[in-house]
Amino acid sequence: MTNEEFRAAGHTLIDWLADYRNRLAELPVMAVTAPGDIKAKLPAAPPIGPEPFGDIVRDLDGIIVPGLSLWQHPSFFGYFPSNGLLASVLGDFVSTGLGVLGLSWQSSPALTEVEEVTTDWLRQMVGLSAAWSGVIQDTASTCTLVALICARERASNYSLARGGLEGEQQPLIVYTSSHSHSSVEKAALLAGFGRGNLRLIPHDAEYGIEPAALEAAIERDLAAGLKPCAIVATTGTTTSTALDPIGKLAAIAAAHRIWLHVDAAMAGSAMILPECRWMWQGIEGADSIVMNPHKWLGIAFDCSVYYVRDAEHLVRVMSTNPSYLRSPADAQVKNLRDWGLPLGRRFRALKLWFAIREQGVAALQKRLRRDLANAQWFAGQVRAAENWRVLAPVPLQTVCVRHQPPKLEGEALDKHTLNWVDRINRSGHAYLTPAILDGRWMVRVSIGAIATERAHVEDLWKLMRQEAEWDR
Amino acid sequence: MTNEEFRAAGHTLIDWLADYRNRLAELPVMAVTAPGDIKAKLPAAPPIGPEPFGDIVRDLDGIIVPGLSLWQHPSFFGYFPSNGLLASVLGDFVSTGLGVLGLSWQSSPALTEVEEVTTDWLRQMVGLSAAWSGVIQDTASTCTLVALICARERASNYSLARGGLEGEQQPLIVYTSSHSHSSVEKAALLAGFGRGNLRLIPHDAEYGIEPAALEAAIERDLAAGLKPCAIVATTGTTTSTALDPIGKLAAIAAAHRIWLHVDAAMAGSAMILPECRWMWQGIEGADSIVMNPHKWLGIAFDCSVYYVRDAEHLVRVMSTNPSYLRSPADAQVKNLRDWGLPLGRRFRALKLWFAIREQGVAALQKRLRRDLANAQWFAGQVRAAENWRVLAPVPLQTVCVRHQPPKLEGEALDKHTLNWVDRINRSGHAYLTPAILDGRWMVRVSIGAIATERAHVEDLWKLMRQEAEWDR
Repeated sequence: MTNEEFRAAGHTLIDWLADYRNRLAELPVMAVTAPGDIKAKLPAAPPIGPEPFGDIVRDLDGIIVPGLSLWQHPSFFGYFPSNGLLASVLGDFVSTGLGVLGLSWQSSPALTEVEEVTTDWLRQMVGLSAAWSGVIQDTASTCTLVALICARERASNYSLARGGLEGEQQPLIVYTSSHSHSSVEKAALLAGFGRGNLRLIPHDAEYGIEPAALEAAIERDLAAGLKPCAIVATTGTTTSTALDPIGKLAAIAAAHRIWLHVDAAMAGSAMILPECRWMWQGIEGADSIVMNPHKWLGIAFDCSVYYVRDAEHLVRVMSTNPSYLRSPADAQVKNLRDWGLPLGRRFRALKLWFAIREQGVAALQKRLRRDLANAQWFAGQVRAAENWRVLAPVPLQTVCVRHQPPKLEGEALDKHTLNWVDRINRSGHAYLTPAILDGRWMVRVSIGAIATERAHVEDLWKLMRQEAEWDR
Repeated sequence: MTNEEFRAAGHTLIDWLADYRNRLAELPVMAVTAPGDIKAKLPAAPPIGPEPFGDIVRDLDGIIVPGLSLWQHPSFFGYFPSNGLLASVLGDFVSTGLGVLGLSWQSSPALTEVEEVTTDWLRQMVGLSAAWSGVIQDTASTCTLVALICARERASNYSLARGGLEGEQQPLIVYTSSHSHSSVEKAALLAGFGRGNLRLIPHDAEYGIEPAALEAAIERDLAAGLKPCAIVATTGTTTSTALDPIGKLAAIAAAHRIWLHVDAAMAGSAMILPECRWMWQGIEGADSIVMNPHKWLGIAFDCSVYYVRDAEHLVRVMSTNPSYLRSPADAQVKNLRDWGLPLGRRFRALKLWFAIREQGVAALQKRLRRDLANAQWFAGQVRAAENWRVLAPVPLQTVCVRHQPPKLEGEALDKHTLNWVDRINRSGHAYLTPAILDGRWMVRVSIGAIATERAHVEDLWKLMRQEAEWDR
């Protein structure tokens, strides 16, 4: 493909994408594809000769789009908002089109410096002090893995330089809530702690971690000769956006010199609203934080920002310095390969830079406030309706609900819940993801796609009542 | 930004990118920016109100492009080719524009199934048997970390489900060549093995690992009561594209039931040429392989493919199954979150799919053969020139050279080498990365940017002679 063919095909695809966004609301939100359907439509072997570009575009319409669940749809209430603001989409286009890599500062200086500046803008936007330094990673799963490895190395006084975790005499222990995200357990296991050294601490009635229970667990472990290493707290859990009491956990962490990592993947975006910052009160006492601007804030995936207070420690754990990566500038610059797992890095800061500039902080705040108000309105409707319950506090944009008709309980209630959600999802009119809370299925209504206005939430509520109550 | 504003701005950026590619050859290859220059041009705080989109585009020209080292430039001979074929760039645009996520198969079925099909196409293209399953990850660093964690869990019979690595009585040992990539040591340290349990095995005269030395190291460790766990071999090392003898290593691995991971990040692309497959002869005896289509093959970064023979083991190590990620389809589909570290996944297969279809296998092969021939031509010129040496075999597209005038040795020779490379890089006419081989600086000439034709290599050779010989 020549540059001029790229120009022509690029214009075609820009129009295709703009048209796609225009017709998004009319498409079914959840793909109803059966397993293997798409595979069956694709050739089993690669083409030897070139195919016309038009054939590829044709297949986008014929094969790809019908096989997608549409995260940008105004009636997408599943999982979490993973928003692609159009300005950030354009920033990502430029990143891919430039095709430069940040192996080191020298390998494309602007890539590193724009990342330093934009992550610092974001730091200011969420009200963190200047003690924090940020770096863009792919996902919160990776950031939490990095955090637990850093905690492991601090607690073991850099065992990686000696016999590793396998050389440690005193097992290191990780603490988290039973409501923390699955990636926390995964990170602890991958970092080598083992499930036997992971403590799932009970939660209170609002699904936040119980500090007294944490304190007791730490005392038990100390008495048993084990070494408390890390606490992973959450601001905005996945199931119900519950809030762990960061200030209290920070005090416990400080008393025992335990690493405190805060998973604010979802709720971090809300911290651009000063009225939400009580939710992570005490955050300055943490050692590391992950927040995902690629969620609610609206930066095209992937853009997960990892903040640390002790950047020197992070670099000491992650750094490599082979001769083929050295440059004369090394002493004066940040080499972000030493701030995370991968060596190769895209110019991910561009999408953050484009979006913050095109939107401005005030417009981002306004949109998030719209979503918070929609969630409160929706929760109010549910609470007022007969046989419907809101099951958890609603500090953010996720509302946990159940339709609970009289005398329906246990597995029959689960079946009812999963049935009406499945009918809604299959209808294509809205997409919801069920989850288990206190041992029973319920439905998470996650509000906050960029296109979602009050009218879409109203339509959803009508649809839910219709499908759930009809089933009776 | 509305959909129609996106359309207009998108067309502007497509033209900007096409124009950028057209003028790329006239721009300096390496950025001559001083540390902090770009930061100083950007506001220290984010804008409160929106900025006109035109201002952002203006800053691309004024601030960003002058701060880039240009990996797509025809005179880029640094690091490795990280090529962005224009068709793959367009595939990535579609991925970002669609804005869908693959948390699970259900969360966008086409994302998973196109990935299954395209990684299988690539498997066929490089001549691997149908016993291998592939998945796209971000980088080889991550794939090698995944491989070493999988090796650790196989050798420890899933210690992660118990006390982790810290509960193991018998330390696990990792073996690799002293010429393996820095990411191998990094992965071993992050996975918890510790530097004390990493064996750097000596290499032979051609910089491939010495099987007898490996065998001896394993015997020593067994005699000391340690447990050999993993061998990381390389097909195409970073410094000199050296080839470890995969078949011999596979036999050693099989005899001791050690995990064999093959890092073919660079040379994997070459395996689409049947005449190159001798380079990893015996590959079917490996347990895992990483190859980076985002390098020489030309897929836009990031696209690193991880192949495994025992996918069930990978999933057992990596899987999580919280309620909020379950769907009715789970029993019949692949959930690729269980094939790597991150939960969230972009639609990365689109860029691979676009590029293979638009190019066809034959055109990809033709381009790589062009680069191999250019490397041989260049090596021939160097060998024939007075006071110039080719320092390592040239099986692929990287040529290790040194200008070695009579009586110049030791640190004076190093200084000479670094000086003439620095002059070339600062001239903006070509970009080369020096590296250390056998304790002395030399220059890696890495040929294979998409735009690099014979004439560019000829120009480089002239420039090198001029700068190096002038210094005398």
